[in-house]
Amino acid sequence: MTANPIRVTVWNEGRHEQIHEEVRRVYPNGIHTVIADHLKTQGFITRTATFDEPEHGLTEAVLGDTDVLTWWGHMLHKQVDDAIVDRVQRRVLAGMGLIVLHSGHESKIFQRLMGTTCDLKWREADDKERVWVVKPGHPITKGLGPYFEIPSDEMYGEPFDIPEPDELVFISWFEGGEVFRSGCCYKRGNGKIFYFRPGHETYPVYYQKEVMQVITNAVYWAAPNEGASIPKERNYKIPLEPIKPK
Amino acid sequence: MTANPIRVTVWNEGRHEQIHEEVRRVYPNGIHTVIADHLKTQGFITRTATFDEPEHGLTEAVLGDTDVLTWWGHMLHKQVDDAIVDRVQRRVLAGMGLIVLHSGHESKIFQRLMGTTCDLKWREADDKERVWVVKPGHPITKGLGPYFEIPSDEMYGEPFDIPEPDELVFISWFEGGEVFRSGCCYKRGNGKIFYFRPGHETYPVYYQKEVMQVITNAVYWAAPNEGASIPKERNYKIPLEPIKPK
Amino acid sequence: MTANPIRVTVWNEGRHEQIHEEVRRVYPNGIHTVIADHLKTQGFITRTATFDEPEHGLTEAVLGDTDVLTWWGHMLHKQVDDAIVDRVQRRVLAGMGLIVLHSGHESKIFQRLMGTTCDLKWREADDKERVWVVKPGHPITKGLGPYFEIPSDEMYGEPFDIPEPDELVFISWFEGGEVFRSGCCYKRGNGKIFYFRPGHETYPVYYQKEVMQVITNAVYWAAPNEGASIPKERNYKIPLEPIKPK
Amino acid sequence: MTANPIRVTVWNEGRHEQIHEEVRRVYPNGIHTVIADHLKTQGFITRTATFDEPEHGLTEAVLGDTDVLTWWGHMLHKQVDDAIVDRVQRRVLAGMGLIVLHSGHESKIFQRLMGTTCDLKWREADDKERVWVVKPGHPITKGLGPYFEIPSDEMYGEPFDIPEPDELVFISWFEGGEVFRSGCCYKRGNGKIFYFRPGHETYPVYYQKEVMQVITNAVYWAAPNEGASIPKERNYKIPLEPIKPK
Repeated sequence: MTANPIRVTVWNEGRHEQIHEEVRRVYPNGIHTVIADHLKTQGFITRTATFDEPEHGLTEAVLGDTDVLTWWGHMLHKQVDDAIVDRVQRRVLAGMGLIVLHSGHESKIFQRLMGTTCDLKWREADDKERVWVVKPGHPITKGLGPYFEIPSDEMYGEPFDIPEPDELVFISWFEGGEVFRSGCCYKRGNGKIFYFRPGHETYPVYYQKEVMQVITNAVYWAAPNEGASIPKERNYKIPLEPIKPK
Repeated sequence: MTANPIRVTVWNEGRHEQIHEEVRRVYPNGIHTVIADHLKTQGFITRTATFDEPEHGLTEAVLGDTDVLTWWGHMLHKQVDDAIVDRVQRRVLAGMGLIVLHSGHESKIFQRLMGTTCDLKWREADDKERVWVVKPGHPITKGLGPYFEIPSDEMYGEPFDIPEPDELVFISWFEGGEVFRSGCCYKRGNGKIFYFRPGHETYPVYYQKEVMQVITNAVYWAAPNEGASIPKERNYKIPLEPIKPK
Repeated sequence: MTANPIRVTVWNEGRHEQIHEEVRRVYPNGIHTVIADHLKTQGFITRTATFDEPEHGLTEAVLGDTDVLTWWGHMLHKQVDDAIVDRVQRRVLAGMGLIVLHSGHESKIFQRLMGTTCDLKWREADDKERVWVVKPGHPITKGLGPYFEIPSDEMYGEPFDIPEPDELVFISWFEGGEVFRSGCCYKRGNGKIFYFRPGHETYPVYYQKEVMQVITNAVYWAAPNEGASIPKERNYKIPLEPIKPK
Repeated sequence: MTANPIRVTVWNEGRHEQIHEEVRRVYPNGIHTVIADHLKTQGFITRTATFDEPEHGLTEAVLGDTDVLTWWGHMLHKQVDDAIVDRVQRRVLAGMGLIVLHSGHESKIFQRLMGTTCDLKWREADDKERVWVVKPGHPITKGLGPYFEIPSDEMYGEPFDIPEPDELVFISWFEGGEVFRSGCCYKRGNGKIFYFRPGHETYPVYYQKEVMQVITNAVYWAAPNEGASIPKERNYKIPLEPIKPK
């Protein structure tokens, strides 16, 4: 799709790993490291950024050098600086892809781009999750069978307060009796946005082959059409000369 | 929503009941009778029509006197007369509501309006089905809780080969491990179309309170905006006089 | 559609009229007064609210007593209190209808609900505008012919940076050579949102019959399904008891 | 997007050129030849097919060797063999791209995939047409400015009886006072469909640089995700083994 390698920035709140032993056991160097390490093996130019870095690691320079941003957060949603949220939103509308993971559904940036609460039902248990492919020919489902299973995961249930997705690519079935729209595609401005449900800080979901296949597929899907060249921000407020028909 | 009572025609293929004892035991007078009897209690003007009647009971006069048509078929999909399918399609595009039930997903009229195969996975077993409300404020989900259950039903599974619904209002969870988009809203021309999954000829699904609540709600939702006055069919091919700007 | 009269709150920034003589000449008591006076004649319970009132006139009590809110703003978009924007957004997601008029495209509340800049091209000139009906059977176009004309209006042009509308009901043609998506329908949460382009502070657009017909139609369309009873705000974060299949 | 060159089949009714001198003057070897010759210069593997060939030139072998099909027809819509329409539809649902040009809006294949009449208003005159780009970052609008003009063309006007497009990329302005949704994207099954309005048999529209740029862009956009490897046709009716939760 692009001549040059896609440049991915993997953002992680990075706090659970510091304070919760049970999370550190699964992700000793943070969720971002596991995701970024995998994406590097796929040939992407990959960096990470976390909440504790200056400007949350998302400076103008970093975003200007990013084709696709992945977002994982949970505890610190409300503390994320509004100025950084504004900046990320501007970049998405200008063409940067955004992949929102799991508890990122309540992040300011996802709420901002959706216009809704992005609220949902949940249960912390070790439900088996079966993720069904609703769109078998979609680029994001490439390489998957009819479904894949996650042996133990937190449950998310409907209703999920989001705008109707442009394309719904996954629906999850949970052992406890719930369903969830687990893979949702949106376009906002020039940017593509993908929400992907699986993944919890206490389960090794981001080590699972199918989950990483989906994130890899989503990077390709969400990358700007022209690859590295994200269009400049738009400013349409230029009065036009009236033209006369022939 | 309308001053005058909504006029509903309940269409049923009506063949299973004639030849299969196990179906006759559940629906001795046919599925259409059970549905129509219930809709009458809701204040709708209700008639029935079946495959074996002349013109399948869907004459120009009948359709001209119908605000909402419900459709159940299974064995005889391919034998339905194309001329009648054309006629129903024209009426839907002109504003008549259409509610397609269960195995009606493979009917000519639904395939015609969708443009796709409407194919799906299925299994005849006595799966428990849990129907989740994805849109709690939608007119079609009025009066329901977060979900309702059908104790035993045929399973339908994804992928369901339909265009992306305008609004997805129900998703089903099945005991056997599958999910399905069970309530799908579309608009085509002036007509509203609702596909509703539950309902099988060997299970008493159409006697269940919540199922009939949904069909009742869907009749209100699908009725033409002006009630009884369905707009005339459209013919736009009228050359216009070019107008000159001031 | 509803047993009880729909309760409409007409919001106006109300500043142009105070400081610009040319606006005062057209709308001596403000745009809100003209709109509200007309809506009263249609049988709605109508009040007004403006920027200069405490809490911009949009207290919890006022919004709790509002089925549909109309929004006109221009000069003071950035000064609107974020807390009030939050409050309006919550009410829309809970079911209150919102009709955004003309320069309201850049209001915080519209940007918030859309997730995009809502930017567009514009030209202040006296272009003739011809508003075409794209959906002739839609409730919002009831009573209109194939198009209506506004003799002189400000021009808005594409691209308009909004999410793809759920339904596009009007497209405008401008004498100077531009086009614009002038009537856009959205659903967010339980709320319906309608953007309607025509209307400028220096032109008597809100005295025009067809324009007021559209706003009246849009009030009916945007009203909550149950009329006066807007559903309570949602809180889905309730852990569920896992249930076991039979 | 694909390693191998995209294989395009350019279909043309090909009758106007045989019987109308004024058409022959503009397209002496048919519209298909002009389009195909241009697409060859873009590096696509290009063939043509016309109504008068056996099976309209669209044998299983030809379609099996086609990634994207373009369709121009006008006089003979009703005479196109239904069996060939079925075959093309199956290929589109399996993943083949389809680009429908101008008067192809009334072709059986477009009506089949849309489910509507695809009716519109029209006027044969020499209106100037200005085609506005509604989605500046979309792959189909690559390389275009804010708009392009066609000096003289047949007018098409709204309402255009189509399902709401997944993405609307062009809107046309006509000198005579009309507007039209000129570039409409759809997905049906695995296939992508693009309707593109400009182009008439008596105007040299298909020699115009911007028009051919759009068709070239649309070929890239509509090509199956995996390039030459179109997925096999789907048959999902395979009973599943019920699985038991852990």
